[in-house]
Amino acid sequence: MYSNKENVNILTALLVAHGVRHAVVCPGSRNSPIVHNLNECPDIHCYPVTDERSAGFYALGMAQATNTPVVVCVTSGTALLNLAPAVAEAYYQHQPLVVISADRPAAWIDQLDGQTLPQPDALGRFVKKAVSLPEPRDEEERWYCNRLVNEALMVRHAPVHINVPISEPLFDFSVSSLPVERKIELLPADTPAHTLSHVVRMFMQAKRPILIAGQPMNPNMDEAVCLVEDDERYVPDFVLYIGNSIVSKRVKRFLRKAKETWAVNETGEVNDTFMNLTHVVQGDGDVVADQVRFMLEQQPHPFVQRWDELLERARQHAVAYEPPYSQMAVVKCLNAHSTTFHLQFANSTAIRLANIYACHNVYCNRGVNGIDGSLSTAAGFSLVTDAPVLCVIGDLSFFYDQNALWNQNLRGNFRILLMNNGKGGIFNMLSGLEQSPARDKFVAAEHHTSAKGICEQNDIVYMRADDMVEMQEGVDRLLQEQSDRPMLLEVFTDAAEDERVFKDYYAQFKKK
Amino acid sequence: MYSNKENVNILTALLVAHGVRHAVVCPGSRNSPIVHNLNECPDIHCYPVTDERSAGFYALGMAQATNTPVVVCVTSGTALLNLAPAVAEAYYQHQPLVVISADRPAAWIDQLDGQTLPQPDALGRFVKKAVSLPEPRDEEERWYCNRLVNEALMVRHAPVHINVPISEPLFDFSVSSLPVERKIELLPADTPAHTLSHVVRMFMQAKRPILIAGQPMNPNMDEAVCLVEDDERYVPDFVLYIGNSIVSKRVKRFLRKAKETWAVNETGEVNDTFMNLTHVVQGDGDVVADQVRFMLEQQPHPFVQRWDELLERARQHAVAYEPPYSQMAVVKCLNAHSTTFHLQFANSTAIRLANIYACHNVYCNRGVNGIDGSLSTAAGFSLVTDAPVLCVIGDLSFFYDQNALWNQNLRGNFRILLMNNGKGGIFNMLSGLEQSPARDKFVAAEHHTSAKGICEQNDIVYMRADDMVEMQEGVDRLLQEQSDRPMLLEVFTDAAEDERVFKDYYAQFKKK
Amino acid sequence: MYSNKENVNILTALLVAHGVRHAVVCPGSRNSPIVHNLNECPDIHCYPVTDERSAGFYALGMAQATNTPVVVCVTSGTALLNLAPAVAEAYYQHQPLVVISADRPAAWIDQLDGQTLPQPDALGRFVKKAVSLPEPRDEEERWYCNRLVNEALMVRHAPVHINVPISEPLFDFSVSSLPVERKIELLPADTPAHTLSHVVRMFMQAKRPILIAGQPMNPNMDEAVCLVEDDERYVPDFVLYIGNSIVSKRVKRFLRKAKETWAVNETGEVNDTFMNLTHVVQGDGDVVADQVRFMLEQQPHPFVQRWDELLERARQHAVAYEPPYSQMAVVKCLNAHSTTFHLQFANSTAIRLANIYACHNVYCNRGVNGIDGSLSTAAGFSLVTDAPVLCVIGDLSFFYDQNALWNQNLRGNFRILLMNNGKGGIFNMLSGLEQSPARDKFVAAEHHTSAKGICEQNDIVYMRADDMVEMQEGVDRLLQEQSDRPMLLEVFTDAAEDERVFKDYYAQFKKK
Amino acid sequence: MYSNKENVNILTALLVAHGVRHAVVCPGSRNSPIVHNLNECPDIHCYPVTDERSAGFYALGMAQATNTPVVVCVTSGTALLNLAPAVAEAYYQHQPLVVISADRPAAWIDQLDGQTLPQPDALGRFVKKAVSLPEPRDEEERWYCNRLVNEALMVRHAPVHINVPISEPLFDFSVSSLPVERKIELLPADTPAHTLSHVVRMFMQAKRPILIAGQPMNPNMDEAVCLVEDDERYVPDFVLYIGNSIVSKRVKRFLRKAKETWAVNETGEVNDTFMNLTHVVQGDGDVVADQVRFMLEQQPHPFVQRWDELLERARQHAVAYEPPYSQMAVVKCLNAHSTTFHLQFANSTAIRLANIYACHNVYCNRGVNGIDGSLSTAAGFSLVTDAPVLCVIGDLSFFYDQNALWNQNLRGNFRILLMNNGKGGIFNMLSGLEQSPARDKFVAAEHHTSAKGICEQNDIVYMRADDMVEMQEGVDRLLQEQSDRPMLLEVFTDAAEDERVFKDYYAQFKKK
Repeated sequence: MYSNKENVNILTALLVAHGVRHAVVCPGSRNSPIVHNLNECPDIHCYPVTDERSAGFYALGMAQATNTPVVVCVTSGTALLNLAPAVAEAYYQHQPLVVISADRPAAWIDQLDGQTLPQPDALGRFVKKAVSLPEPRDEEERWYCNRLVNEALMVRHAPVHINVPISEPLFDFSVSSLPVERKIELLPADTPAHTLSHVVRMFMQAKRPILIAGQPMNPNMDEAVCLVEDDERYVPDFVLYIGNSIVSKRVKRFLRKAKETWAVNETGEVNDTFMNLTHVVQGDGDVVADQVRFMLEQQPHPFVQRWDELLERARQHAVAYEPPYSQMAVVKCLNAHSTTFHLQFANSTAIRLANIYACHNVYCNRGVNGIDGSLSTAAGFSLVTDAPVLCVIGDLSFFYDQNALWNQNLRGNFRILLMNNGKGGIFNMLSGLEQSPARDKFVAAEHHTSAKGICEQNDIVYMRADDMVEMQEGVDRLLQEQSDRPMLLEVFTDAAEDERVFKDYYAQFKKK
Repeated sequence: MYSNKENVNILTALLVAHGVRHAVVCPGSRNSPIVHNLNECPDIHCYPVTDERSAGFYALGMAQATNTPVVVCVTSGTALLNLAPAVAEAYYQHQPLVVISADRPAAWIDQLDGQTLPQPDALGRFVKKAVSLPEPRDEEERWYCNRLVNEALMVRHAPVHINVPISEPLFDFSVSSLPVERKIELLPADTPAHTLSHVVRMFMQAKRPILIAGQPMNPNMDEAVCLVEDDERYVPDFVLYIGNSIVSKRVKRFLRKAKETWAVNETGEVNDTFMNLTHVVQGDGDVVADQVRFMLEQQPHPFVQRWDELLERARQHAVAYEPPYSQMAVVKCLNAHSTTFHLQFANSTAIRLANIYACHNVYCNRGVNGIDGSLSTAAGFSLVTDAPVLCVIGDLSFFYDQNALWNQNLRGNFRILLMNNGKGGIFNMLSGLEQSPARDKFVAAEHHTSAKGICEQNDIVYMRADDMVEMQEGVDRLLQEQSDRPMLLEVFTDAAEDERVFKDYYAQFKKK
Repeated sequence: MYSNKENVNILTALLVAHGVRHAVVCPGSRNSPIVHNLNECPDIHCYPVTDERSAGFYALGMAQATNTPVVVCVTSGTALLNLAPAVAEAYYQHQPLVVISADRPAAWIDQLDGQTLPQPDALGRFVKKAVSLPEPRDEEERWYCNRLVNEALMVRHAPVHINVPISEPLFDFSVSSLPVERKIELLPADTPAHTLSHVVRMFMQAKRPILIAGQPMNPNMDEAVCLVEDDERYVPDFVLYIGNSIVSKRVKRFLRKAKETWAVNETGEVNDTFMNLTHVVQGDGDVVADQVRFMLEQQPHPFVQRWDELLERARQHAVAYEPPYSQMAVVKCLNAHSTTFHLQFANSTAIRLANIYACHNVYCNRGVNGIDGSLSTAAGFSLVTDAPVLCVIGDLSFFYDQNALWNQNLRGNFRILLMNNGKGGIFNMLSGLEQSPARDKFVAAEHHTSAKGICEQNDIVYMRADDMVEMQEGVDRLLQEQSDRPMLLEVFTDAAEDERVFKDYYAQFKKK
Repeated sequence: MYSNKENVNILTALLVAHGVRHAVVCPGSRNSPIVHNLNECPDIHCYPVTDERSAGFYALGMAQATNTPVVVCVTSGTALLNLAPAVAEAYYQHQPLVVISADRPAAWIDQLDGQTLPQPDALGRFVKKAVSLPEPRDEEERWYCNRLVNEALMVRHAPVHINVPISEPLFDFSVSSLPVERKIELLPADTPAHTLSHVVRMFMQAKRPILIAGQPMNPNMDEAVCLVEDDERYVPDFVLYIGNSIVSKRVKRFLRKAKETWAVNETGEVNDTFMNLTHVVQGDGDVVADQVRFMLEQQPHPFVQRWDELLERARQHAVAYEPPYSQMAVVKCLNAHSTTFHLQFANSTAIRLANIYACHNVYCNRGVNGIDGSLSTAAGFSLVTDAPVLCVIGDLSFFYDQNALWNQNLRGNFRILLMNNGKGGIFNMLSGLEQSPARDKFVAAEHHTSAKGICEQNDIVYMRADDMVEMQEGVDRLLQEQSDRPMLLEVFTDAAEDERVFKDYYAQFKKK
């Protein structure tokens, strides 16, 4: 029988799954649920040592002898600090000590209650990873708890620290079995050829595999998901996730239905975007993607084909749909041009529209999605390339970063398409927010400003458009006119109409 | 109408209570519940500024002009980082900026989701206090959330950061009124005379005031509380809390029933041990306590008298009760001696028994209650005093710190009373733990070791006792014999009997 | 005889000066210079304890018994980590442990050399102050070393950590006496009345006292110092330093000649601006200054009078000097106006000119002197006052923060005087920099931008001036015209001429 | 012409060496030496941008466009903080921004001087490496400065921060050429096969290559180096450094004469033990060493052979030398035994003697060389192996960690050889220390304690030896006797004699 503490049980199950076989345990009441559990596991052998300082070195010696991770489990308070000497020694010896400390709930730190001190980062830089587990109360927190334990146990050749807050009552040992917990495995970079073929084989053998490249993005994916919604035939079982952030919330939510995700990145970090990560492949995502695409050409996969057809339908709708004058019409018009451009999209509405219309090579600051530097990023890009660089940007982002235009470096290959509807248009589309009287003025930052002044100030060629014709002409000039100076086209639209068209686009698509 | 997010409402209510009147607000969806709330407060004026860097300096200028704390509220992501320049400037200008940032739940940091980065400590040392609020789901977490906001808003002359994770859905504005929230006030050290008389007056005017001095402790308080339990006539309404940690969990639980606590300490820190703190008085607790006791002599207070009578009954029971041979008999026997000693108790059982029998001047490492250094602390104490120093200690604590005896400084005034029952006796008394097969070996660290060897090794005079007579003789020698070397009396008792006597003591008392 | 290590000797001298009498010392070679020194001090008693964990608790017990700070001195490596349990306990007991750890030079951390680990912050939040001493090689570093030790030993009621890197060779004990070291004392806030009268008495009794208020600043002080230079008759022996940062580098350098400085601030922090701080008075600077000024009225002080005369001469020169058209003429013209204004100066040239001409109530972001938010700070200020607010600002600062003008809050009481000479004018005045070909373009950020565009964009009333007459008319309008919208006057001057006039002003003054 | 600031020149030279081609530079005086230098480099193109926030994003865009590291250089103060948004975005985009900030000397932080704030860690976790350069004044500091810059520039796919304190005077541009600086290269783990063959080839092609494995150690290396001293014929030009810490200071000093070191480790960290590191090979050291040894068998290398002969001579001296009764005799006696044992040596004298006599498979806690846990480490080791484990340990280390014997896990395969000479014997050998009266009592921690008591207390079989015969018999029993309980042999020697013999050993060897 096991403790009834969920975080303790998740931890125990994952210790077993990650192959821990030895645990040095120290006395205490707060950590007794953990010690109890370890003692219940047939695969784990417990060694009681009372002096925690000595216990830490015991675990070190056992790690040396077995070449495997060894647990040392202590109660709350200075117990943890007594481990510091052994942990520091293990750090420099590259030995995998797994320090597990029981803790009180964070609310009680520094409240003059018993044996409480700030534990989560108490071992400083002598552990390569330190996590503090939640006491989960819903699925999201259970997922979080699982992920944190996995993150700690995936570390190789170094001590880690898992801090476990446990609320009272402590002594209920009535759970008959440990939960079945997802284990995340790291495929490290040191065997690249072997790893690559393993990943590709897993993909090809899956029943319903899907290849997801973050931004630069899978075009039309958002609409496709919008269409199939819960249709089981489209839900993948195996996601191979290459690259960076996904723009569409809808797509992320959809991919959480998959059974497992294998993620590829250079640093081996754990990004559990779809909440079902099982393998982290340390390596170059592009190489993996190329190999998968090559295999698919040799040997088409029915599930991949089904998705390709769906995406093609979405693409055709995008082509067929004729938006009236609005921000969507602007982005669509852009796409009609054959000129080759480097495209930099700003966040918010701009990148959402790009998701529908833009072709493949799109840049966007999706790392933390700030409003703050899109114009500067595009400007910087234009300085070190001779090709034209086009920045598509909304009004808030533009004025926020208008200092991007205040310097002597800019050249004529820099072009700006400013979509100005007088506020943060994205906020119009957030359902429920309309009930707040603060929305327009405080949340969406309504304003009445034009870029004309700043363009004069910085010697930027300025054009404006207020209807479809002016806009199309403006885009033509923007993309084709030769100029020594940067050019900017400011397209004024109506925020309410922008919102209406955006919704209509999806409504039409679903009707089909 | 207000947001339905509890942490946002607690925050808003306390901003109003602490006198905030101006808020610079920046656009965003994650922070819209906060902005909405600020805009709903008649006492708070909102100023929308889109560029967060500029917004921070706006708030700084407003703080300069009004000499009051000014809020600047931003959404999640780099929005917060854009405030750093203004916050650093405010830090060196000693201006009270209140930075409020919306955040995603911690589970989503580094998962490649939108606008997520590690926010809680992002402003580094440029804020004097940084708190991250929970999304409360029970009373304890609501209390925690309240306390954190209070801690931040109690800071004077410096910027602070309040980070507010908010889960989706974000846009529900259906709560009709803000909660009534406890405000904690700081009475700073710069007006000591005035503050002192204010505190004493509050005490004397309260209906049911109680003066609590932490460790060194209120003797017999634990038993007294055990007796009255929920008797309303003994529940205080006003707690004046002087000094450090309280040993008895029962006492702490009891004092949580009081309406409010005023705590006195030198540093002005917030220790909300009884969960009802309303005032922190920065000053010397002993001075305050002396003054209160002086006033009580002049003008007795009926509620204080009622408690004094209760404590006297507890004291008499302690005197009258005749424990059979056990650890309790040892500590009682000690107390019968009239010799003056500095008393140092170790943690766990030793200090619990001291709570019953020891007279006033007792030392014990209750800061973090470690098992680790009690013997060394007592030994160090003995080096710089000529009076005898007695250390009363259990077996685990003793062996843990036996290196305290391995040095050339020790002199004859150091005496040790070692109570050895072969394990961490305290673990026997934890109800429920007996169900775990891990208890004796792993949790309570059962052992069969005597101090004889270590005493020989370090030239300590060794005595042992196995029954009442030997014990009493031993204690006599320990307290009275002249010696150039330290002396140790090891008293062997039976852990089960120790437990039985301890419980009987309380049972007898309650029967009366 | 003492060690030949200077940082060890400074440390030893200050331990004695701050009243340390007991030191627990642990074996080791790296810390042997410190242990040797402690053992040489007749006032300090050493207690050898080998197990560092035990040693920490020894020191704790001694601090309890003596109510004084007690040293515990350890060698490098994990020795320090073994102290963590005792230090944490001391932290919560508010006991003044002084942890001294020997260390290797920072260059050797993580180089797989013996007993090296990152020591400076190894005790985390369990010490209230952690400093790592330099191995000084010039006067500035000796001063730094002295200050760091003082900072640590000024902490009350809490453990501190002093880390002492010591280079080889370690064993030279040939210095015959400890250096005479400045001790810095803290006068804490808890006895305000007593402290106040003490400080005032010290001031009045000094032979050559001077009262310095940081920004808002002592006007004409910079010129005065420029005039007297090394004239001994003006050098103070006692500086009473109230308030915040000093703008003038020349003034700071001058005040470093004084014998001692007493600084007053609310938090008791150590700001050793003049390198001769001896007392930190925790309290309200304005109260102290008022009291001193009151006393001076009662009882004039000849040295203060001598300075007042000097400052009056400087003031008269400022009045008499007639600058030709330049930035200086602008600021002087401002000063001629009798209108009451809140004045906010930006950094760089603006505040330097303010030092000459502005009357008392001047605001300026001198906390960290950023170029970044002066305009926003002034704008924020204007929102919460009905009086007019004037921001005097140079071109780089203005364009940097032009987003201050992009919001809906601004009202007509906000006025801007923009001094545009096409670059960071301050860089022209840095002697030596003219030799770098990078100066104008990269260091001074030369540009050709006007504020006209941004004013149009944000509906700000725009005026420009290109000569003396236009400037004077512009300033008149700026200060007197009623307007619902903010107004801006952009004054274009020639950077070379600005520089010439500024230098001439000082040259003329010195000629007299 | 370049600046006369050495750290700036080292930095500039390494930026060029690591292939930086683009730098966004922001105005300022403190950073003008850096900007000047960048502008002087023909290979680096500078782009001036005044608003630092915008500048950061410019650099990000340029990194995206060029796929190379891009510098952004700012002055001190909030300038750095304005970069935070772009750096955070770059962190999540894995873009290699190189942030360079000028700073004041650390002594001036928080002294109310201009533009000073704590810069070294101001960018928090958004940079993968943050270094703060010294202003070097000797060769060691120049080496340190070089190493720090290399460490930062070796980071891949992430932003880094290089903070550069620069003392006044700032404007001297009189240095005619940049220094020639060592570049350290990282060979990452993702191309293991290729890397391996490259490393082996480099070794075999070197003129004077040497393979150094840290602890477990190169036996007899210390004596060998002692013999050849400065003999040029033995100085390597190419060091291939596998594994962990080197015990012998003499060996480390010797290897610093080599031209370059290639180090192999699993994490790619920079451990510049010999101060001449040029390549860090991320991989498994044992694999590399095996491959090199295999190649050497195929194709002997004359320089390696010369060293093998030297080591063989040292080995023969070790065999031939007959130490009288002393600690050296103990360790030699051990070595004579053929029994297979796991050997765990404690630090200080024990491991130094092991360097001479022990055969290959020796464990020792050399990570941070603590005195604190050697006995526990050996004990822990013995729990998870059936083979005998022998711990060779000095008195201080033994008593420090005697709690290693206080638990119920120990079995008969654990054996302890305790060498007790009544103090930290190593301190006798430190030349110069004998002049301090503190040496024996405080530095070497002289004591008179035997392990007999602690052995009784914990049921350890105890033996003692006071002369050669008893010692040899004791060692025989220790290594051969069957026992259910651990066994300990305590060998008492005279510290002075131990020292004499140790020195004689080397003297005899050199005489030959």
